[in-house]
Amino acid sequence: MGSGVFPSAGYVMRKILLLASLPLLAIALPSTALAQNGSAQADRLRDAALKDDVAYDIVEGLTTEVGPRLAGTEAEARARDWGLRRLKALGFSNVHIETYDMPVWVRGEERAEIVAPFPQPLVVTALGNSAATPPQGLTAQVVGFDSLADLEAAPDAKVRGKIVFVSHGMSATQDGSQYGYFGAARRNGPSVASRKGAAGIVIRSIGTDYHRNPHTGVQMWAAGVTPIPAGALTLPDAEQLQRILKRGKPVTMKLTLTPRNIGMQQGGNVVADVPGTDKDAGMIVIGGHLDSWDLGTGAFDDASGVAITAAAAKRIMEAGRPRRTIRVVWFGAEEVGGNGSKAYRLAHPNDKVVFVAESDFGADRIWRMDPGFAPANSAVADRVAAVLAPLGIGRGTTPAAAGADLGSYAREGVAAIDLQQDGTRYFDYHHTPDDTLDKIDPEQLRQNVAAWTAMLSVVANAREDIAKGAPRP
Amino acid sequence: MGSGVFPSAGYVMRKILLLASLPLLAIALPSTALAQNGSAQADRLRDAALKDDVAYDIVEGLTTEVGPRLAGTEAEARARDWGLRRLKALGFSNVHIETYDMPVWVRGEERAEIVAPFPQPLVVTALGNSAATPPQGLTAQVVGFDSLADLEAAPDAKVRGKIVFVSHGMSATQDGSQYGYFGAARRNGPSVASRKGAAGIVIRSIGTDYHRNPHTGVQMWAAGVTPIPAGALTLPDAEQLQRILKRGKPVTMKLTLTPRNIGMQQGGNVVADVPGTDKDAGMIVIGGHLDSWDLGTGAFDDASGVAITAAAAKRIMEAGRPRRTIRVVWFGAEEVGGNGSKAYRLAHPNDKVVFVAESDFGADRIWRMDPGFAPANSAVADRVAAVLAPLGIGRGTTPAAAGADLGSYAREGVAAIDLQQDGTRYFDYHHTPDDTLDKIDPEQLRQNVAAWTAMLSVVANAREDIAKGAPRP
Repeated sequence: MGSGVFPSAGYVMRKILLLASLPLLAIALPSTALAQNGSAQADRLRDAALKDDVAYDIVEGLTTEVGPRLAGTEAEARARDWGLRRLKALGFSNVHIETYDMPVWVRGEERAEIVAPFPQPLVVTALGNSAATPPQGLTAQVVGFDSLADLEAAPDAKVRGKIVFVSHGMSATQDGSQYGYFGAARRNGPSVASRKGAAGIVIRSIGTDYHRNPHTGVQMWAAGVTPIPAGALTLPDAEQLQRILKRGKPVTMKLTLTPRNIGMQQGGNVVADVPGTDKDAGMIVIGGHLDSWDLGTGAFDDASGVAITAAAAKRIMEAGRPRRTIRVVWFGAEEVGGNGSKAYRLAHPNDKVVFVAESDFGADRIWRMDPGFAPANSAVADRVAAVLAPLGIGRGTTPAAAGADLGSYAREGVAAIDLQQDGTRYFDYHHTPDDTLDKIDPEQLRQNVAAWTAMLSVVANAREDIAKGAPRP
Repeated sequence: MGSGVFPSAGYVMRKILLLASLPLLAIALPSTALAQNGSAQADRLRDAALKDDVAYDIVEGLTTEVGPRLAGTEAEARARDWGLRRLKALGFSNVHIETYDMPVWVRGEERAEIVAPFPQPLVVTALGNSAATPPQGLTAQVVGFDSLADLEAAPDAKVRGKIVFVSHGMSATQDGSQYGYFGAARRNGPSVASRKGAAGIVIRSIGTDYHRNPHTGVQMWAAGVTPIPAGALTLPDAEQLQRILKRGKPVTMKLTLTPRNIGMQQGGNVVADVPGTDKDAGMIVIGGHLDSWDLGTGAFDDASGVAITAAAAKRIMEAGRPRRTIRVVWFGAEEVGGNGSKAYRLAHPNDKVVFVAESDFGADRIWRMDPGFAPANSAVADRVAAVLAPLGIGRGTTPAAAGADLGSYAREGVAAIDLQQDGTRYFDYHHTPDDTLDKIDPEQLRQNVAAWTAMLSVVANAREDIAKGAPRP
């Protein structure tokens, strides 16, 4: 019936640092073509996957027939049922749902307005775990900071009783690394503001687009901190507020956010297997997350991840039984605390998992492969690099970290590969109402499936043992 | 105190056809350089205006210090006060407000959701003059049409009691002409649906962007038609609904729109003059509109128009008194029915207006000059074309129509020039929450000011009489 799984404050930090840790100096090295050990089949499967329609059908179906699927809600349950049906129809083995219980926070009304000196509405959304304002709203003076550091440095007296506004300078990058750095305004800003006695906080959305669609996202209250109302303004609204503050007159805001905690609810992971021929060779676990934020339909985040991994696994399955079992997990509750991945680890303590890989960064072109193998397995990484090069994918130097759901394996030293998607436009849509099907480029999605198929073909069929490396930070 | 001015159903059609009438074959002809009759000064003023900051300051100030300014509301009144102060500060003469009374419709709650077969929220906004649903919403089956023509051809029985959904194929064009053609879904769709007994209607937004920001806009109920709830879905939501309908199961929508008519309120125009030296030479009237839709801050539509025209007139004023008086009018209530321009015509029946020009199509680069002069004044058009050519502006062959506010003069045969702005991205923002300051490109705005300054310099100082031509359709 599922055990209770609670998110920890460290989760959000770790999840975001997975992105932040991408190095500035990662250089795509020319790959050495080592055409051996099954790579002719990998080449063939790769090229065939460039015509894949399975992944797009999954993204289209899940976003259309379920739509938004907030963790722990009945929408996520519908998504699991949808996933169960689809994965069975695709021919996977051992398709089943594993449930767990989790606390659930749901959005309410969301409004913000400048009351003085220039009355006008602003567009806001609540951050995850935000406290509620009174139903009629919270009216207070605004105190603005250009960065989280400025807020941290401010005397409590400047903040007490006010609505804090925190801006930042995040910009779009191919590797998405600015999300980790500037995302601190969301992760830590609310707790810092509350500690200083703020009545509420609004941040500039952790995003890169100039549309009136705010970016939500989870934040966890630090231990001992009193939750306060916490929201994100769109970039146009945040800059409007900055211009208004710069006029130098006292600025009063009325903020209305009425989210609620609805207690323990059921969440779940959907599991599907491609059985291997050699149990002793260990199991591969891949996947993405089935839940989405509630504002959009979660096409980029992360219908595409569950679609890419399932479509690639299906191609391996249809090419003949691989050496290693490939398990596809569509995780629940990634967005709100990783409850699904924690429950999965608790439910499968004895699996011999030798390799993990996760897709949770949209569906734009994969441009870099970051391997994470023990030194003894460097030849596997070389073969993967060679089979990916024709797709325009270079080899990076960052040790693979997997993602929020499978990163715990990688941290223990389990081998992993990160197939890095182009993130240039990812934070235009991520966690906003704009994360919808129309943002998916079918051709780039196919390149993802081709890369994943080729990578899985090499790793699942590698004749070597895949060793565990040293634990990673 | 202002007279009562009511919008007519024909207004919306005419306003939109002003754009629709742009010909498909308009070709920019090489202009003949006729350096005479004051064009050296025009050249000088044009080049100086490429460093203009006045227009941007107006757009920034109006959108920041007032924000949204729906016609007939206290926000529009604040915009008038702001305009009065700013135009006086800029040194104009005879700066004053002319008020009138008008009926006002204001937005309420707006929500839409698919109830079955795939429950999920959709993003909707009410169209102008929409009727309200019950406060708890209207739940009905959806019947979809790919075009207004398909709706018109449908038997009443197919529509009766249902929520009609109308799609269309509008795409982005440089001349914006598709707004007229596809905009019929908004202008006429609600009346057609009501006549057939529909319970409500939602249309695909008359726009070109894939963000979850719906496009509002005015529609007038045809004579004898019962108002029904009428809204617009964003493009991602409209395509989602199409995909859901294509699954072939009955689709039920719950639509909640609670706009209200708040009766007669005061509106007004702001008037400012650059006095000329020769009363007998007649007056020039230029301008844009001060009101905006309520969803955005009306940067493109039309803070930029009032800014461009005022900035250009100020440059003429500072270059020495022109031959002809230039009147700048910042019209009220353009968006909801042209109440401001009608009131202006009623208040000024005896002015000798010899030339009009209007800016109401954003602030992107002007690419074409369409003259509208009597044959006797072709040399004036030639001189304007010559002074604009260095800005990359070609000469078109469409007779100038002015715009929604000054088009009535042009239709009577008053000379006019249309300085056509690039409309490629205009309908990404127009009438949406996304029409905000960040969309303004300061360099393109300066090119607009330069073109307007050069054009005004030629026309205001032309030694010839400016004749009236034949009335136009």
